[in-house]
Amino acid sequence: MEKAEIGLIGLGTMGSNLALNIAEKGHRIAVFNRTPARTQAFVESAGALRDMVVPCASIEELTDAIRPPRPVIIMVLAGTPVDEQIAALRGVMSANDIIIDAGNANFRDTMRRFKELEGSGLTFIGMGVSGGEEGARHGPSIMVGGTPESYQRVEGVLTAISAKFKGEPCAAWLGTDGAGHFVKTIHNGIEYADMQMIAEIYGILRDGLGMRPKEIAPVFAGWNKGRLESYLIEITASVLEADDPKTGRPVVDIILDRAGQKGTGKWSVIEAQQLGIPATAIEAAVAARVLSSMKDERLAAEKAYGANALKFAGDRGDVLGDLELALFAGKIAAYAQGFAVMAGASKEFGWNLPMPTIAKIWRAGCIIRSQFLDTIAEAFGKADPSTNLLMVPAFVEMMGKAHPSLRRIVARAAEAGLPVPALSSALAYFDGYRQGRGSTDLTQAQRDFFGAHGFERIDAPGAFHGPWGSGAA
Amino acid sequence: MEKAEIGLIGLGTMGSNLALNIAEKGHRIAVFNRTPARTQAFVESAGALRDMVVPCASIEELTDAIRPPRPVIIMVLAGTPVDEQIAALRGVMSANDIIIDAGNANFRDTMRRFKELEGSGLTFIGMGVSGGEEGARHGPSIMVGGTPESYQRVEGVLTAISAKFKGEPCAAWLGTDGAGHFVKTIHNGIEYADMQMIAEIYGILRDGLGMRPKEIAPVFAGWNKGRLESYLIEITASVLEADDPKTGRPVVDIILDRAGQKGTGKWSVIEAQQLGIPATAIEAAVAARVLSSMKDERLAAEKAYGANALKFAGDRGDVLGDLELALFAGKIAAYAQGFAVMAGASKEFGWNLPMPTIAKIWRAGCIIRSQFLDTIAEAFGKADPSTNLLMVPAFVEMMGKAHPSLRRIVARAAEAGLPVPALSSALAYFDGYRQGRGSTDLTQAQRDFFGAHGFERIDAPGAFHGPWGSGAA
Repeated sequence: MEKAEIGLIGLGTMGSNLALNIAEKGHRIAVFNRTPARTQAFVESAGALRDMVVPCASIEELTDAIRPPRPVIIMVLAGTPVDEQIAALRGVMSANDIIIDAGNANFRDTMRRFKELEGSGLTFIGMGVSGGEEGARHGPSIMVGGTPESYQRVEGVLTAISAKFKGEPCAAWLGTDGAGHFVKTIHNGIEYADMQMIAEIYGILRDGLGMRPKEIAPVFAGWNKGRLESYLIEITASVLEADDPKTGRPVVDIILDRAGQKGTGKWSVIEAQQLGIPATAIEAAVAARVLSSMKDERLAAEKAYGANALKFAGDRGDVLGDLELALFAGKIAAYAQGFAVMAGASKEFGWNLPMPTIAKIWRAGCIIRSQFLDTIAEAFGKADPSTNLLMVPAFVEMMGKAHPSLRRIVARAAEAGLPVPALSSALAYFDGYRQGRGSTDLTQAQRDFFGAHGFERIDAPGAFHGPWGSGAA
Repeated sequence: MEKAEIGLIGLGTMGSNLALNIAEKGHRIAVFNRTPARTQAFVESAGALRDMVVPCASIEELTDAIRPPRPVIIMVLAGTPVDEQIAALRGVMSANDIIIDAGNANFRDTMRRFKELEGSGLTFIGMGVSGGEEGARHGPSIMVGGTPESYQRVEGVLTAISAKFKGEPCAAWLGTDGAGHFVKTIHNGIEYADMQMIAEIYGILRDGLGMRPKEIAPVFAGWNKGRLESYLIEITASVLEADDPKTGRPVVDIILDRAGQKGTGKWSVIEAQQLGIPATAIEAAVAARVLSSMKDERLAAEKAYGANALKFAGDRGDVLGDLELALFAGKIAAYAQGFAVMAGASKEFGWNLPMPTIAKIWRAGCIIRSQFLDTIAEAFGKADPSTNLLMVPAFVEMMGKAHPSLRRIVARAAEAGLPVPALSSALAYFDGYRQGRGSTDLTQAQRDFFGAHGFERIDAPGAFHGPWGSGAA
């Protein structure tokens, strides 16, 4: 039998879908699952693609079935299971074989694993896959970290199975070791901010303008034809249209407002802190999910303080126009933070991350896919990759037009008592970023006063102390 | 010669001051420094306290000079130097001797060191010391983590040298292993938020109201007589009064608005993330310092976008009244976050942190010392320690009166283009916290739509999916 082009371990929903996607694109794939029954079930579900699948009863059989050098995708739970699979594969693989972790690994684990395999003859790829189950089956966005040589071996398969934006594959090699998983983490962090800002705008439409879900749905549907065009806006319109079969009420109205959070939002914030790069919109989004989970406490607090959600006054059309631009401005600031964190990591870890390429492979397949990312890709293509998005000329123009709406919406929400944590963080970031003279002169004076930290002067280089003398405190 | 009560290694400014403080309170202290010249200089500087100081030429001599069980304070640079001193002390110490790290250690290092000494016969104390050089010399706030028995041995010395609030010593045992250093970290995180909110208010006074430093100083001096009474408000007034001897201009006006940040602000945010507790006001403060350090980028951005700092309209007296209450409301929210992070850590690490005691030992000696902390201590004394400060009755009343001012100030600053990252984060936290029904129902609908995450219903227990079917995306 003809050798398989690639192997895959772990036939859960994501793994199965990825395997079917690979088979469908004409690449023979060897598969193995710890529970043989699952392998059997997978083969049966493969239908017409069955000929392209080589079911294996052991990892020895799996590696034997693959054309060397053998790439094997691991799609198991992040953490210890990945290390266990790597240990098992080391026992049966040969020189130049490639272990690919396609799960949601923390990039620091990926860097460790990459290092652990160095000198073993094997190489390691950490691969971020975005787009959920459907993306895995029909075209995800694929972010690869590893050696260029190992990527070359799998490039054909990965570009074939990836999503396409106007024909361009949404898969790319981004850098060595942890680069792919890091970029996937920041993708998810941006997704948190994106979703939270949409939820804040929805909250204003619902509570500030008193609109019903079915009235709000066409607003998002309309925005999806303009500058906000994106998958998340599209599905916002869809879910707001949907009715609950049980009660006949709009589905959103019967959903408990308690959201969970997985690791990647948190990781984004922690890594941004480690790098010393502001990611306040992402952090606001993570915090909002945490607050949402404290439902009982919130109900008790509402009782203690009284509800304070006032209606927005003024012309509804004007407010709607402001809301669209406010969301757009908030989005620009959040993406600026996300790309700045990636620029910081690129420097810190020596990845030389290709920003335009990252924007390009996010244009389709992943959850934050949008027209906007095409604009970023184009704008970044002409700029130094370490440039803050807020300083890329095309964005200066867009943000220049949009920020007045953002400040009006943040102001009115603050007055009305409607929480806009991500939008207000985005605005504060923008206002802090474009303020030539801030107010930390006072902070520096205080620090020198109580801790003799010293300060810089505006009129001379060097470190100085204030006239309060040492030991003023 | 009579044995010393305690020893100290590391005669830098902090170590020297702590040693003099100990000697002054009548406790004989043995001191050692790697560079003998520094020990010599210290003894010479001790003046009348010289009789209470036992200079030692080696750590053997140091431990020999102390009454067993021997407590030895290490006051060296955080990190490897601490581990080196511990290794050296292990070679010369005896059973029940106590190594005390009084530096700014990351509490996770403290926990590791505590664990490493377990079974060695020696014990370890991680001790947070706040108040800077002056505090060390004349009365710091002291936060102790270790075994209760080891604390008992040093309690007399520590309470003697600590700051006093109305006669009560600001030193306490807070829990095992890393408890003291953790609480010190959060103290510093709160300090970041406190200082940033003061800087934001100062920015509004300067840029929004067009006031000169000498006009702003009496505003803060006035506030220092009311609900904002605190060391940081007091020194704000002082530094705003001060003139630069070189130019004759107000000192703050010649200070470059570029602030540094040390590890503890960052650590606070990272640990809050690890615990899943919102600390957005602290994060906003850390981010503001980072933005402040990007001076050149800010100047370029101001040029690209144009300055947008509009003046605040309206009666100055009204605005000043709002600013005072806005700062107070922001402070309540920031402290609520800080205490919530400590409550989360207390549970996570099994510390059983005594919240009223923490508030009490922060009332004097440390940078955030204030009347406010006495209010917190009193209010918390009656509440469950895991209660959010925003739900403690005395604070419900204060916040109920103050939050309307906070929302007016955030709104006006947003409209004027003045950055208020910490104040707006504090407001968003409050508004999210006291909103019984938020807007993450939409977030949950989206997550179920694209990732089949499932959601909870308001009318039935369990996990459900929307009518979009699986694979809607």
